Amino acid sequence: MTTSEPLVANLEVGGRAPPLVQQVKDLFVLNPHAELTVSPSLSVCRWSAPLLQRLERSMSSVTIPPPACMLRPLETPMRYLFGPGPSNVPPRILAAGSRPIIGHMHPEMYEVMNDIKRGIQYAFQTENNVTIAMSGSGHAAMECAVFNTVEPGESVLIGVNGIWGERVAEIAERMGANVHRMVKTPGGYFTNKEIEKAMEKHKPVLFFLTHGESSAGLCHPVDGIGDICRKHNCLFLVDTVASLGAAPIFMDKQNIDILYTGSQKALNAPPGTAPISFNERACHKMFNRKTKPISYLFDMTYLSNYWGCDGKPARTYHHTGPVSGFFALRESLAILAERGLEESWKKHKEVAAYLYRGLEDLGLQLFIPERDLRLPSVTTIAIPNGYDWREMLVYIMKHHQMEMTGGLGPSIGMVMRIGLMGYNCEKSNADMALNALADALKNCKRSKA
Amino acid sequence: MTTSEPLVANLEVGGRAPPLVQQVKDLFVLNPHAELTVSPSLSVCRWSAPLLQRLERSMSSVTIPPPACMLRPLETPMRYLFGPGPSNVPPRILAAGSRPIIGHMHPEMYEVMNDIKRGIQYAFQTENNVTIAMSGSGHAAMECAVFNTVEPGESVLIGVNGIWGERVAEIAERMGANVHRMVKTPGGYFTNKEIEKAMEKHKPVLFFLTHGESSAGLCHPVDGIGDICRKHNCLFLVDTVASLGAAPIFMDKQNIDILYTGSQKALNAPPGTAPISFNERACHKMFNRKTKPISYLFDMTYLSNYWGCDGKPARTYHHTGPVSGFFALRESLAILAERGLEESWKKHKEVAAYLYRGLEDLGLQLFIPERDLRLPSVTTIAIPNGYDWREMLVYIMKHHQMEMTGGLGPSIGMVMRIGLMGYNCEKSNADMALNALADALKNCKRSKA
Repeated sequence: MTTSEPLVANLEVGGRAPPLVQQVKDLFVLNPHAELTVSPSLSVCRWSAPLLQRLERSMSSVTIPPPACMLRPLETPMRYLFGPGPSNVPPRILAAGSRPIIGHMHPEMYEVMNDIKRGIQYAFQTENNVTIAMSGSGHAAMECAVFNTVEPGESVLIGVNGIWGERVAEIAERMGANVHRMVKTPGGYFTNKEIEKAMEKHKPVLFFLTHGESSAGLCHPVDGIGDICRKHNCLFLVDTVASLGAAPIFMDKQNIDILYTGSQKALNAPPGTAPISFNERACHKMFNRKTKPISYLFDMTYLSNYWGCDGKPARTYHHTGPVSGFFALRESLAILAERGLEESWKKHKEVAAYLYRGLEDLGLQLFIPERDLRLPSVTTIAIPNGYDWREMLVYIMKHHQMEMTGGLGPSIGMVMRIGLMGYNCEKSNADMALNALADALKNCKRSKA
Repeated sequence: MTTSEPLVANLEVGGRAPPLVQQVKDLFVLNPHAELTVSPSLSVCRWSAPLLQRLERSMSSVTIPPPACMLRPLETPMRYLFGPGPSNVPPRILAAGSRPIIGHMHPEMYEVMNDIKRGIQYAFQTENNVTIAMSGSGHAAMECAVFNTVEPGESVLIGVNGIWGERVAEIAERMGANVHRMVKTPGGYFTNKEIEKAMEKHKPVLFFLTHGESSAGLCHPVDGIGDICRKHNCLFLVDTVASLGAAPIFMDKQNIDILYTGSQKALNAPPGTAPISFNERACHKMFNRKTKPISYLFDMTYLSNYWGCDGKPARTYHHTGPVSGFFALRESLAILAERGLEESWKKHKEVAAYLYRGLEDLGLQLFIPERDLRLPSVTTIAIPNGYDWREMLVYIMKHHQMEMTGGLGPSIGMVMRIGLMGYNCEKSNADMALNALADALKNCKRSKA
């Protein structure tokens, strides 16, 4: 900055960032004729046009100044995350995620990934070799499953009884699949007979079902469906994002061909990784396709090599995995292994039952009438008469620093949702949630109702 | 476990995890006739077949036991990450990433995302409204850029002078684009004349160039290319994963239409997020397409809404962003804003020059002869005669706990690479790297050379 042109700038006076303040001071030492204008809006800052035009494309030609908002420290509140996810991350997992990182292809990283693989095998109850974690959230796993096992023009059958089936249908349509939807209103479920009938009609290569339909609070039965899929030469893809660790699932015994979940629900890791597993049938289909999957990033040929699942001696560079996210995911899977699946399932069932009683005591109605079909991790209640659900949720957030949520997709306006998952799954938390709801019921009643 | 069938199990005796040990003990209390077999391989464990067959698909039917590896604590070494990335993450960024999380759609999260947007605008030197961070690494940004701005059948021109151009070509081919490659050997670069000639021939809708070609250590000139692209009605897409913060780039002034980078290079955040920006020209093309982008997850219509860039009052749920990753990214962008781009560029240039001198003093030859074309963040050296580069790298890792790497893609066997990026970019670190190299040169000389 060796010009003596007038310039217009603003800066945060007395901010916490000496480097920028010093920079600006230096600038005025170099440029004693500079005109300083402190604008009321600290976030907008421009050098004057004449100066701009004369600046060369060199190191000295920075024209967009450092934003004032970045000179303030990061501040985030403490929240009770009692919605359908993400759930609170326990200190032990936060600590694992904040370890100094190593390279994404160091042997020690491969060990961490091998551990994750075994942890997922346990959580999914599978011996599948091709078991990995996606470098992305549940949606990355969803796209990965569809992109790899379906080719354009092939028939796909999708159970839509909430938002997730609709998402998978959209994903499959975009990549050129011939999509058939079986549709139920939120809270509805499909009988095995209905599924087999639709399978006979549409002859799909893939059938999708959501085990934990978090938008409606439904835990869909899966027994027997895998057998029907085998009979009809179809792969069975199951989404357990909201249910894994909270409700029993047995990938191998239930003949599920592709299973995935997310990290931020009952596993309590931060969002950003997603376990997924493919059995031999799924591998046969996806590794014998005529066309390449449309995404290079989600191509299981490369991902299974990166995760050491393809039997090749060397792992070659594909993409840079989220090292810290994998550290955190490993810790979350370790906690589940130490605790045991049965114990985790039992706890979710008990706390959910405790919550149901409390909700009923408050005069609230559970959205899923059949107790056995309720998702233990996410409980849905019908919106009480005479209340605006948005107002109740805002009230609870404001006065209790607690997240509960409304519906999602087709269930919007139908339900309110309370999630007590993994680390959060304690009776004491259910009491807090019930207390917050009671408070909202008392204070948010509408006069005109 | 209320059966009295014999069963076969193994367990880690004296491991650190009482819950599992207790579980197994409980099992034998419930099942006094169980046969216990401790296998030499602790990681393999089966219940006997007769039992398996009779088990119901219920909470008691867990057949894959908790893996022994998960009962050991996570252990990772401390490494000097002086390769081409990821680079070491400073404690301040690790701390930001380990804060208790909040919801991905809480107002405070939107504030963090707004801050990130401004931080990227500064780092990219752009005023583009559609400026976001991908929930994924640089490859996610790469696919996002191509998927959104190109439709199947359209012509794309790609500068391939190392691995990154080849990757983009592969991505564009998979989604059905008509791909034209301009190819140079690693270290080569394209003149504006060559680019314009190819553009006249192939009439592409998109031209891709890597600013920081980390596989060869080249910093490609970009001045004037944006103007050529405008003249030919073509979008200019630039990859700055390895160069951002280390070498000057001016998105707006250099008429770059789409720019992206990664989090784990000079920004020093953990891998897993990737800043990307689209200008008005790029938005016009991508928001007026005939077909939907093939990826729902990377569809900029949804992503720009999630990031509050589409002018709509409400942000609707699309996917769950990596909350902790965004906290860390915000901190990394804050550090860059406090320090200032000019200071960061100057530091990288100075430390690189210092490293060059040291390397030449060791008798090593820099791979890119033209000093001005060298990438300040990643320095490439020709493999010295009489040495096996793999042996040298293994030696340096073993004796100095330091990562340096070989080439990547077409540059494998041609170069060794030293990265000193952001937090790692200090003369003291250059000294350590030079010391490690001197040690390897002394101890890895092959007799037959």
